[in-house]
Amino acid sequence: MSELNPQWRLAARPTGLPKPSDWEYVEEPVREPAEGQFLLGLEYLSLDPAMRGWMNEARSYVPPVAIGEVMRAGGLGRVIASKHPDFTPGELVTGMFGVQRYALSDGRGVAKVDETLAPAPVHLSVLGMTGLTAYFGLLEVGRPEPGQTVVVSGAAGAVGSVVGQIARIKGCRTVGIAGGREKCAWLLDELGFDAAIDYKAGEVRAELRRHAPDGVDVYFDNVGGEILDEVLRRIARHARVVICGAISQYNAEQAPRGPANYMQLRVERASMAGFLVFDYAERYPEAIAQLALWRSNGELRSREDVVHGGIEVFPEVFLRLFRGENVGKLILQLDGERS
Amino acid sequence: MSELNPQWRLAARPTGLPKPSDWEYVEEPVREPAEGQFLLGLEYLSLDPAMRGWMNEARSYVPPVAIGEVMRAGGLGRVIASKHPDFTPGELVTGMFGVQRYALSDGRGVAKVDETLAPAPVHLSVLGMTGLTAYFGLLEVGRPEPGQTVVVSGAAGAVGSVVGQIARIKGCRTVGIAGGREKCAWLLDELGFDAAIDYKAGEVRAELRRHAPDGVDVYFDNVGGEILDEVLRRIARHARVVICGAISQYNAEQAPRGPANYMQLRVERASMAGFLVFDYAERYPEAIAQLALWRSNGELRSREDVVHGGIEVFPEVFLRLFRGENVGKLILQLDGERS
Repeated sequence: MSELNPQWRLAARPTGLPKPSDWEYVEEPVREPAEGQFLLGLEYLSLDPAMRGWMNEARSYVPPVAIGEVMRAGGLGRVIASKHPDFTPGELVTGMFGVQRYALSDGRGVAKVDETLAPAPVHLSVLGMTGLTAYFGLLEVGRPEPGQTVVVSGAAGAVGSVVGQIARIKGCRTVGIAGGREKCAWLLDELGFDAAIDYKAGEVRAELRRHAPDGVDVYFDNVGGEILDEVLRRIARHARVVICGAISQYNAEQAPRGPANYMQLRVERASMAGFLVFDYAERYPEAIAQLALWRSNGELRSREDVVHGGIEVFPEVFLRLFRGENVGKLILQLDGERS
Repeated sequence: MSELNPQWRLAARPTGLPKPSDWEYVEEPVREPAEGQFLLGLEYLSLDPAMRGWMNEARSYVPPVAIGEVMRAGGLGRVIASKHPDFTPGELVTGMFGVQRYALSDGRGVAKVDETLAPAPVHLSVLGMTGLTAYFGLLEVGRPEPGQTVVVSGAAGAVGSVVGQIARIKGCRTVGIAGGREKCAWLLDELGFDAAIDYKAGEVRAELRRHAPDGVDVYFDNVGGEILDEVLRRIARHARVVICGAISQYNAEQAPRGPANYMQLRVERASMAGFLVFDYAERYPEAIAQLALWRSNGELRSREDVVHGGIEVFPEVFLRLFRGENVGKLILQLDGERS
């Protein structure tokens, strides 16, 4: 093949928000699959806050992306050529294929997508890692009971918007915290949240008191920082705090801020726990079936914030996550834009 | 009765370490018990870090001590006169009787002490709330398994020294963090800890790496602050962090410091949980029987740091807790010292 594979590689470890010089744009020849591999053409990239963490040197649940390595990212693509017994040209698959137009894979960590269930981008949102993260984090770690109050931050984000809807489906009082009136209106009017708190309006403490008068039974945290501390002030007896993300801290140039009110965990005999969706891999099929059912019933809405412009615009589009500019799942569409 | 009841009342809410002007010394006449009450003479006062929290205005698991109110404290005393059907003069009892020489009680929250089990002060330490806190916090919240690594801070304190010993009895590798060589030697030589880390020597990170090479499975935290953050850096997969206290923060004049490394809970799918011993009240008899058995077997040592000097010295002796001056359970002996 003489086709070129454009890709973004990590050029430097960012301090604060990634800047253009932290990235290197490279075009390398597309290679043929070796025995046991297949080649795929990526159509959609999943842009996730967690990617910022992978750019740091620190020990985490996955090794950091190395300097000079193609940036790690989830994506959705179609098999073009295959020397792998289980993958056939034309099949649609998801996996961690990196920020590039073509990828070789040996099939590890790759899932086939049932195209009849939903349009392609939905397999990166509600029916992908996003939906699975919301599903297992809320139901297995948060363990909400009907009638309890569930608060979710980053509520208009990819994971948060699904968390709130699952909580609503499970009969909970659902309170979302998001930035801006428009996002809050979407939570209330489209997703059926019971209440939405606009943290940019600055009244988080008073609004939490108003919307969670008996305390917060489950808090699903995507943001960390000040909002985590405010919710800790109001947790109910035996509350569960689910640590999913801390987007407010990912680009901090100082040491990250810890939750000063963590001793409320003692006062209320509560717990705060982290989880990783990968630990539930055996149960993905069950969860995807449930999520797809809720979606087809109309109980669970998904919103994909699909950005066109091709792989070239990746560095700039990635920053939207940290500026709170996306509503729902941020996805970069790769195909069809190449010049 | 014409006897006087000396007592310490809270005069002002302290900022930082309580100072003399935060207390008021009062002597009031000893009153006769009313119907359904009994009068007791207090012999020993339990001095606990948690008392500092009760002096603050903040919402907690018990209401704050009001300004002008007798300072709340646990104690051990003997019934002097009774108009209560269940209590007879001469009986030894424990309860929250306050910082005073005499107390009236209606029996609520009062436990009779089996004097044959151990000398009186032991009923405020290993066989009292201290031992119960260690027992339920470690076994029910920490849930250590044989062979796992248990780290406890404040390890030479009242609760910490019992936690480490129970962990040892349960077959765990036990690492104590304490301040000073003398305390560390006591943990190793007398209590059978596997390792002791002197945080004052400043090598907590390196020492944790050395003594918990496979990570920390259970961390029982009595201190908060920097040490909590250091241990979070080293937690093992599925670790349990038990939040018992945060003595490093109780007298902080700024906002307390939260654990900046709390996102390790996510990386390691770990949890951090608070608890209150009172929630296990129904199981106190079972726990006391077990603790007494271990003590009589010689498997569990208790050390009571009994200070003489009478109630007059309470404000000064109380500060020893925050200066790290006590080893084992700090107790103020009240009887026999009155002039």
